[in-house]
Amino acid sequence: MATEIEKKVMEAKIASITLASVDTRTKDRALEAMANALDENRDRILEANKADLEEAEKMMAEGKLSQALVDRLKVSNSKIDGMISGIRDVIKLEDPSGKTLRTLELDTGLDLYQVSCPIGLIGVIFESRPDVVPQIMSLCLKSGNATIFKGGSEALNSNRTIFDILVTAMENTEGIPGGAFQLMETREEVMDLLAQDEYIDLLIPRGSNDFVKFIQNNTRISVLGHADGICHAYVDNKANLHKAYDVCFDSKVQYPAVCNAMETLLINREIAGDFMPEMIKRYEDAGVELRFDEGSYTLAENLGFKNLKKATEEDWKTEYNELILSVKLVDSIEEAINHINSYGSHHTDAIITEDEAKRKQFIDLVDSSSVMVNASTRFADGFRYGKGAEVGISTNKIHARGPVGMEGLVIYKYVLLGNGDKVADYAGDEPKPFTHRLLDKELSDVLDN
Amino acid sequence: MATEIEKKVMEAKIASITLASVDTRTKDRALEAMANALDENRDRILEANKADLEEAEKMMAEGKLSQALVDRLKVSNSKIDGMISGIRDVIKLEDPSGKTLRTLELDTGLDLYQVSCPIGLIGVIFESRPDVVPQIMSLCLKSGNATIFKGGSEALNSNRTIFDILVTAMENTEGIPGGAFQLMETREEVMDLLAQDEYIDLLIPRGSNDFVKFIQNNTRISVLGHADGICHAYVDNKANLHKAYDVCFDSKVQYPAVCNAMETLLINREIAGDFMPEMIKRYEDAGVELRFDEGSYTLAENLGFKNLKKATEEDWKTEYNELILSVKLVDSIEEAINHINSYGSHHTDAIITEDEAKRKQFIDLVDSSSVMVNASTRFADGFRYGKGAEVGISTNKIHARGPVGMEGLVIYKYVLLGNGDKVADYAGDEPKPFTHRLLDKELSDVLDN
Repeated sequence: MATEIEKKVMEAKIASITLASVDTRTKDRALEAMANALDENRDRILEANKADLEEAEKMMAEGKLSQALVDRLKVSNSKIDGMISGIRDVIKLEDPSGKTLRTLELDTGLDLYQVSCPIGLIGVIFESRPDVVPQIMSLCLKSGNATIFKGGSEALNSNRTIFDILVTAMENTEGIPGGAFQLMETREEVMDLLAQDEYIDLLIPRGSNDFVKFIQNNTRISVLGHADGICHAYVDNKANLHKAYDVCFDSKVQYPAVCNAMETLLINREIAGDFMPEMIKRYEDAGVELRFDEGSYTLAENLGFKNLKKATEEDWKTEYNELILSVKLVDSIEEAINHINSYGSHHTDAIITEDEAKRKQFIDLVDSSSVMVNASTRFADGFRYGKGAEVGISTNKIHARGPVGMEGLVIYKYVLLGNGDKVADYAGDEPKPFTHRLLDKELSDVLDN
Repeated sequence: MATEIEKKVMEAKIASITLASVDTRTKDRALEAMANALDENRDRILEANKADLEEAEKMMAEGKLSQALVDRLKVSNSKIDGMISGIRDVIKLEDPSGKTLRTLELDTGLDLYQVSCPIGLIGVIFESRPDVVPQIMSLCLKSGNATIFKGGSEALNSNRTIFDILVTAMENTEGIPGGAFQLMETREEVMDLLAQDEYIDLLIPRGSNDFVKFIQNNTRISVLGHADGICHAYVDNKANLHKAYDVCFDSKVQYPAVCNAMETLLINREIAGDFMPEMIKRYEDAGVELRFDEGSYTLAENLGFKNLKKATEEDWKTEYNELILSVKLVDSIEEAINHINSYGSHHTDAIITEDEAKRKQFIDLVDSSSVMVNASTRFADGFRYGKGAEVGISTNKIHARGPVGMEGLVIYKYVLLGNGDKVADYAGDEPKPFTHRLLDKELSDVLDN
C-alpha cells in the first residue's frame, strides 16, 4: 500500500507531464496571481508565522533552537515584499524550456531537433526559512517542473500557509494542472522522500553544511548544491599588491557568513614580507582573527605584530563563515594549487597575479566551479553572474556547476520528424549516407505551422 | 590504510587534474600511438584472448557461462581492426573540452567566461566485451578525463593485455601524465569501486539490463546509461498506413537485440481493422511472435489469423530483445501516451500520424529521451544522431539524455578575469550596476595573448 508520501510523489509525477507542456504566458499569469495572493494575505502569513515564532522562542529558551535559526524563521512585511518581488523577477526571466538547442538534418526530410524541457519532478528540502517556498516554487513553475517541498517542523504553520496561498492562486489559473506542487507534512519523514529515487529527478537542499551533507549521503537522487564552501585566495609573487589588498579584503570581509567568502589566504613566500604588513593591518582593523601557519607566524612576529594565533591542520579544512582567516606561506604556485585542490571544496578560488603564464596555470589546474583572476571570490553568485535568480551553487561535476539559474532545472529531449523513415535503408550492403547537416530551424515554428 | 582500489582511484584522481589541461594535439598524438600499438601487438592480444576463451568454454560446458557471453568475449583480427578504426575515428572528432560556451561582461574590465572542461574521473564497469577498453579509453582521453576500468573476470587476460598495450603507448607520448588510466584487477570487488563517490564523478556501465540496474541501485555516483529499453510505436487513427508498415516493421525487425528496438505496438482502435491484416502478415513472414491484448486478439481472430497468442500484464513491462512483439488496441492518443509513460522506460517512442495537433501532443507529453514522428525507433543512436561516437544512451533526466557522445563527458567551469575588483563596490547604498553584456570573446584567445 502506498504511503502518504508515495501518494503525493505519484500525484506530482503525473501532473509533471502536463505541467511540462504549459505555455509561458499561462505560467506567467499563474506567477502574477501568486504574487498578488501573497500581497492580499499578509495578515494570514504573519499570524501563522507568529505561532511558529512563539513555539520557537520556547524551544530557544530550553536551548533546543539557536537564535540564528529563530531569526531566519521570522517573516516580516518587508520579507513578504521580498517574496513578492522575487516572484515578479521570475516573470521577467526567459522561460528556459521549449528552446530548440540544435537542429540536425539526418537526411532530406528527416530532421532531428534537440529541445530543452523541464527535468520533471524536483524535491526541495529546507531548514527554517519559509521564503524558500515562494522562491523555489516560482523558479520550478516557470521552468515547468513539478515540486515536492519538505520544510522543517519549526516552520510548520508558516510553510503550510504560504504554500496554500501560492498553490491556490496557481491552480485557480486556467491551464495549470492540479497536484504538481506538494508540501510534505512535518510528521512525514525526510528519509522517505530521499528514497523516492524512482520518481524524483533532482533534489535541491537549502540549509547548513551538515544538513546538505546528510542529504547527499542518504540518497541516490542527484543533489544540486554544495556542502562546504572553503574558498582560497593565492597572492602570487607577481601580484600587484594594491589589487591583492582589495581582493583579499573583500573576499573575507564583505560578507563573511556565506559560502563564497574566503577561508584561507595563501601567500607566495617571496612577496610575503612586502604584502603582509598592510594586509594584516587592514584585517586587524576590520576585526578579522588571523590564524597563521609556521612560516607566516614567524614572519608576522618579525614584522612586529603581537598576540598572534597559530593555525592547526584542522583550520585548512574549516569553513569559518565568520571573521576568521587562516594564512599560509607557499613556495610556489604549484604548492598553492595543490593546497587548494586538496583542502578546498572545489567551490571558488582566486589568484592575484600579473603573470600571464601563471594565470593560465591557475585557471587550468584549479579544479573549482569558479576560478577568479584578480577578482574577489564573492562574485561567485547567480545574480552577479547575470542569471536573474539563483537555484543554488553547485560543486557537482555533472549537469550544472557553479552558480546555477533556471538553466539547471531543464534537460532536453530529442524529437525526430520523418516521413515513414526506416533504419534498414541506412544499413546493409548499399546504405544510404546520412547528410548530418546543421539546420537553422526551431521545432516550435514547425509544430505551430 | 588505503586499499589497492583507493590507491588506484587516488592516483587517477591526481593525474586527472593534469590530464584536464593537456592540449588537443598531444591527446591526438597519444591516440595515434595507441592505434598503432594495437596494430603491432595483434598476436599478444589474440593469445591473451585465447586463454580467456579456453577458460570460458570450460565454464560454458559446466553451464556457468552462456554462448552469447562467450561470443562477445571473442577477439578476432577483424575485431582488432574495429578497435583501431574506432580510435582513429575519435582522433577526427572535435575536442569537447576547452570551449568558451558564453562570455558575459559583468562590468568594464570584469569578464566572466563559462568554459567546458573534463568531468574529472570516470568509472567504467563492463561485462565480457574487451573492446570496451579501447573505445571508452579513447573517448575519455580525447575529452581529458581520467578513467578507472573494471571488467569481468572472464576477460581477465584480454582486458589486461589490451589495457597494457594502450596505456604504455599513451604514457610514452610526451605530455601525457602517468596514472590517469587504471585497470582494476578482477579480485578487487566492484562494490568497492561503487563506494568511491567522493572521487569518481560519473559511472558508465556496459552490460545487461540487470547489470546496469545492479550498479544504479548500489552507488551514489551518477550513472550514465539506461537499464531497460522498452520502446513503443503508436499507430494513430490519422496515420498514413504505408508509413506505419515501414516504421513499425523496421522498429521491431531491423535489429531486435538492441535497446532502441520496439517491444510494444499500440494501435488506435479506429484504424486497427485496416492496418492489422498487412502488418500482421509482414511480421509473421519475418518470424515475429505476436502477443495480443484482448481487443487485438479478437480482431486478429475475426480477420482470419490463426494460432494467436495472448499478452499478459508482464508483457507490457518486458524488453524482449528478440523477435517478439506485444500488441494492444487503444481508444485514443491519450491512452497511448498514458501506456507509454506508465510502462515504458523513457527511452524512445514513436507515433505514426498525419495529424499535426496529435503530433504536437505526442511530442509534448511523451516523457522519453527520443520521440519519433513517422520514423523508426531504431534511429535513436549516437552515430545516426551525428555524434561520431556513442558513450551510451541515457534515460537520466539530468546532465545528458538520449544518445550521448563526448559532450556527455564534459562539464564547465566559470573563469572571472578582473583587475582587483571587489564586490563591496556593487553593494551597499550606492552600488555600481552590473552591465551583464554578452561578449564575443574566447577565453583561449585571451590566455594565449
